[in-house]
Amino acid sequence: MGLTDRSIGIMKTGRLNLITDVAGVKVGHYTLSNQEIQTGVTAILPHEGNLFREKLLAGVSVINGFGKSVGLMQIDELGTLETPIILTNTLSVGTATTALVRYMLAGDEQIGVSTSTVNPVVMECNDGTLNDIRGLHVKEEHVLAAIEDAKVEFAEGAVGGGTGMSCFGLKGGIGSASRVLELDGSEYTVGALVMSNCGVLKNLIVDGRKIGQEIQGQKDAAEKLEKGSIIMIVATDVPMCSRQLRRAAKRAAVALGRVGSYLGNGSGDICLAFSTANRIEHYAERDLSSIGVINENRIDRVFRAVGEAVEEAILSSLMHGVDMVGRAGNRRESLRKYLK
Amino acid sequence: MGLTDRSIGIMKTGRLNLITDVAGVKVGHYTLSNQEIQTGVTAILPHEGNLFREKLLAGVSVINGFGKSVGLMQIDELGTLETPIILTNTLSVGTATTALVRYMLAGDEQIGVSTSTVNPVVMECNDGTLNDIRGLHVKEEHVLAAIEDAKVEFAEGAVGGGTGMSCFGLKGGIGSASRVLELDGSEYTVGALVMSNCGVLKNLIVDGRKIGQEIQGQKDAAEKLEKGSIIMIVATDVPMCSRQLRRAAKRAAVALGRVGSYLGNGSGDICLAFSTANRIEHYAERDLSSIGVINENRIDRVFRAVGEAVEEAILSSLMHGVDMVGRAGNRRESLRKYLK
Amino acid sequence: MGLTDRSIGIMKTGRLNLITDVAGVKVGHYTLSNQEIQTGVTAILPHEGNLFREKLLAGVSVINGFGKSVGLMQIDELGTLETPIILTNTLSVGTATTALVRYMLAGDEQIGVSTSTVNPVVMECNDGTLNDIRGLHVKEEHVLAAIEDAKVEFAEGAVGGGTGMSCFGLKGGIGSASRVLELDGSEYTVGALVMSNCGVLKNLIVDGRKIGQEIQGQKDAAEKLEKGSIIMIVATDVPMCSRQLRRAAKRAAVALGRVGSYLGNGSGDICLAFSTANRIEHYAERDLSSIGVINENRIDRVFRAVGEAVEEAILSSLMHGVDMVGRAGNRRESLRKYLK
Amino acid sequence: MGLTDRSIGIMKTGRLNLITDVAGVKVGHYTLSNQEIQTGVTAILPHEGNLFREKLLAGVSVINGFGKSVGLMQIDELGTLETPIILTNTLSVGTATTALVRYMLAGDEQIGVSTSTVNPVVMECNDGTLNDIRGLHVKEEHVLAAIEDAKVEFAEGAVGGGTGMSCFGLKGGIGSASRVLELDGSEYTVGALVMSNCGVLKNLIVDGRKIGQEIQGQKDAAEKLEKGSIIMIVATDVPMCSRQLRRAAKRAAVALGRVGSYLGNGSGDICLAFSTANRIEHYAERDLSSIGVINENRIDRVFRAVGEAVEEAILSSLMHGVDMVGRAGNRRESLRKYLK
Repeated sequence: MGLTDRSIGIMKTGRLNLITDVAGVKVGHYTLSNQEIQTGVTAILPHEGNLFREKLLAGVSVINGFGKSVGLMQIDELGTLETPIILTNTLSVGTATTALVRYMLAGDEQIGVSTSTVNPVVMECNDGTLNDIRGLHVKEEHVLAAIEDAKVEFAEGAVGGGTGMSCFGLKGGIGSASRVLELDGSEYTVGALVMSNCGVLKNLIVDGRKIGQEIQGQKDAAEKLEKGSIIMIVATDVPMCSRQLRRAAKRAAVALGRVGSYLGNGSGDICLAFSTANRIEHYAERDLSSIGVINENRIDRVFRAVGEAVEEAILSSLMHGVDMVGRAGNRRESLRKYLK
Repeated sequence: MGLTDRSIGIMKTGRLNLITDVAGVKVGHYTLSNQEIQTGVTAILPHEGNLFREKLLAGVSVINGFGKSVGLMQIDELGTLETPIILTNTLSVGTATTALVRYMLAGDEQIGVSTSTVNPVVMECNDGTLNDIRGLHVKEEHVLAAIEDAKVEFAEGAVGGGTGMSCFGLKGGIGSASRVLELDGSEYTVGALVMSNCGVLKNLIVDGRKIGQEIQGQKDAAEKLEKGSIIMIVATDVPMCSRQLRRAAKRAAVALGRVGSYLGNGSGDICLAFSTANRIEHYAERDLSSIGVINENRIDRVFRAVGEAVEEAILSSLMHGVDMVGRAGNRRESLRKYLK
Repeated sequence: MGLTDRSIGIMKTGRLNLITDVAGVKVGHYTLSNQEIQTGVTAILPHEGNLFREKLLAGVSVINGFGKSVGLMQIDELGTLETPIILTNTLSVGTATTALVRYMLAGDEQIGVSTSTVNPVVMECNDGTLNDIRGLHVKEEHVLAAIEDAKVEFAEGAVGGGTGMSCFGLKGGIGSASRVLELDGSEYTVGALVMSNCGVLKNLIVDGRKIGQEIQGQKDAAEKLEKGSIIMIVATDVPMCSRQLRRAAKRAAVALGRVGSYLGNGSGDICLAFSTANRIEHYAERDLSSIGVINENRIDRVFRAVGEAVEEAILSSLMHGVDMVGRAGNRRESLRKYLK
Repeated sequence: MGLTDRSIGIMKTGRLNLITDVAGVKVGHYTLSNQEIQTGVTAILPHEGNLFREKLLAGVSVINGFGKSVGLMQIDELGTLETPIILTNTLSVGTATTALVRYMLAGDEQIGVSTSTVNPVVMECNDGTLNDIRGLHVKEEHVLAAIEDAKVEFAEGAVGGGTGMSCFGLKGGIGSASRVLELDGSEYTVGALVMSNCGVLKNLIVDGRKIGQEIQGQKDAAEKLEKGSIIMIVATDVPMCSRQLRRAAKRAAVALGRVGSYLGNGSGDICLAFSTANRIEHYAERDLSSIGVINENRIDRVFRAVGEAVEEAILSSLMHGVDMVGRAGNRRESLRKYLK
């Protein structure tokens, strides 16, 4: 629900200040938190129907491609999203992929027989500092549990895929925010959800304040390489084609710059944006159809909303962080104690 | 008008077997042919209205980017074409750009003052073998003359921008062809126009026949590097978004493979595809609108049409070639004499 | 080992006419062939050492991105390959990913703890016509078995990942070929291996002969959509940077055009090229180093080799095909019976 | 020379805090400033030799492609820069292209005859608010004059190509800065030069301070669309391949985010990065060679330097701004008066 006390930027926030302010979007978590095991799964359900049969238009921006996400190539080619989006740790991508495939097969018996296969979308960060990532503790049933948990009012912070994540040397994880904009006299929403695991402490900036340097001074920390990654999901009900969605996804880079990232080599910085406004039928009978799009001269409203919502979602993931001791006694603190 | 005696592939050709079979498309030439000067300008007008005010959706495939075309970056970003397409020699791109800018400024007095500037599209090949390309003989008025010459029934071969071009060691130049396909019970057209200047003789294939090797045996020619470039323009009235048009443009690579190209390092192999089906208004007042698109499960019909039409357009450029002696006594022969 | 009776193109073939003519490259298979289950795994080992510690430069061309391959994004960003390449069926990608991750973890205990994670590369085609793909019959141990089976002289046709594949309506699968070229007075090799599963019968062309139309006439077959996919792996010992390798990978499109593909919408056509000439050390201590590259003005030799070797590899996969009856009694015939 | 009183970030600046701190780089201007005509040309000479014969490795990031720059496609394909970089206004790109072509032809008589043509690099912003851009006042001789003016100590602000530019509603133009980093015990330099013409006033941030909102409160200004563009040139003597340089160029997005941009639709935001460390000979005789590269695990040092230098260069362009009255009485103020 974004930052509690104030908001980034100047736009109006949605009702919950969560990605689920976009109608139809739901988020679920499954959390594994037990000493050396600090990991989990977060599932984003883009709409309430059968996604394979009614796909959504989507676009991806690979801001830095040091990452192991699955399913982005086909989105880039076809411009469509046809499964829920699963977020988990890097080495569990294979398991999550198989689980998501099974989930989709169960929903349509023609897949792989009389129609094409399905393109699972699984995105990841490396939680190896706090989590025994080599243990591959995420199981297929955990992915299904996260999908089943999907709801409108969901938790942020050290939950689901975000359980063991670190961000700017502090406790990262899941964060979300939303913004409202007006088009042709009606209100539309842009929502963002991040799984944050990027950045080095001394670079952290909160709404212009170089708090990373302030905290660093108290900690005698050695410089570290920026690694980890951040996954940024943008949802909107603004009608947009896949090219426009890809353009919107690119604006997530602005948010990363604002919070202090330099897009480090080792950080997979990826944004996936989708719109709920058009449904692309898998079994459409007609050869031609039409899709709603935004006038490109008005798209700056969406771009700003993406920038503000993603920036706030990152900060929200930090503000919802808790102090944690994980694998090998490694510790991460919450930003909250430093930001009063 | 494609190959005279037969056709590549299995699809039906359009009425003229030219790119202008797509309603509204016109092509004009201005030719400079005088001993050392063998060059010119070809202009493709995508529709008959004011293109800046009513843009068309477009997509580009840079199959090999060793080239100096102007205007493709913005098409890739915005998905729109807002000027005629000018084809000329490599070193005259600057002059053609300025001429096209002036032409567009004359058509809308708000450009650069109360609205944005304009994105001129100029594409090129290096005709330096037959033409004194270093002389920069193309003048601004030649570009305007080519635009003014635009019509439905236009010449192929050594005319306009194709005047001094070489292709597979033979005389290249302008070639065109078209294909007809059916969608939802109606006929649609895909047209192609190429300015061909690529390939080495021994590799030339005509509809499966390795004629390059046959001719080479008669000529004692040394192997040469593939250089030169080929510009391929695809027009259609099939409703397609910019992503779909970019996909269609990529299929031009099939045609290049079929005629014997290996996509040589020095060859700028570029395809620009546009659709006349949607008009994007520059001064649109509404924030939202809709565009017609093709069902992606039917897009293979367009892909095949692109492959067939571009292959035939390349061969047509060769078949319309004439024997020419140009700069420094360099010679190029017509394929026609070898292909009976 | 390519076509048995003759060769595509004009270049000299390597000793075995296989991808393993590139020194250090090995290929292994694990085959599941039992009535409804017709699938498997093929593993390509790019060199004999620890790939995570000594990475190879690589480049990818996504000719058509309707596919579910894993690991390509990071290759595009970093230009390095750090695991064996696994080929299997589409729905088994998750299992293969997990298996490959475990294999790599076993080879370096720092992965995910004191150093970064690892980028598994798994590529796929949909063998659902002949194989019960929904059954997810590939298990983790099958992947390891394929890796362990790796050797220089390997089988082609309906083996490993190619077991259940179809190509141009005939029996597809694994095919391989190689070409030799000279640089600075020494010989270098380009090898290709494909897992072929693309194309429709009537379009098949064998070295210029439209044999697909010939066979089609005998079969009364209805037109089908091009779907399936083709994975093309190119190996070379020519020193090349990642950008040059990506350029080489793009030339695989020429081969697809030559054998009759139109790069159908539903076909994931992907080429991954790597060079064994430079080793990029994961734990390098120095900040600066140097890599060998090819003079771009000589790269056409590599481009032609890629075109010829990939085309021959595709045809070899067909020539090594066997008549097969698989899932639901679906049948595929060998090209060999038609091509005498 | 960057900000006068302090510096952005934490890295050491170069001697002059200009892009010319990278040895061999020089910058020249030609300014047209007379009432309605407020425009000009800036030339960046990447090294002191013949660039066509000794090319430099380069990479481009098209952060937002609403722009008309020339020459970027070939850099993306071949990874090399072979001409000076010319910056001017949008509608003068054609003239500058022709002028640069003539300059290059004069330097090598084989161009276009016995060797390939040349790839001119011309980049632009729209100075139409302050300048009569429709008048096309830049002439070929002005481009040559800017090249001839090239030197190490050059002016910033409203000079050369930056003469008529606006940035965040204030006076923009040319700005530059540099950073020093250490690799293998030696010092290397990253320099940046921008031609700034992007942003809306209320969004301007100076090192965390939201000064745009402060100024806006004093001015009763209506919201405006972000348009204009910004060209960002990065030079370095760090050995890097073209892929690494493209990665570095992408980090310019961080700087844009920090100063308050949302990467507006109408803003062509483009960064071109080149390294002086490797020379690629046009007429190289050998088939193979080697190039120096940076260990990817150390590249964060370059990324941070790019972020800091570009951010400071943008602010420097604003700080060197002067109050100006241009076309149609349009006015732009200097940031300096507001930032004490």
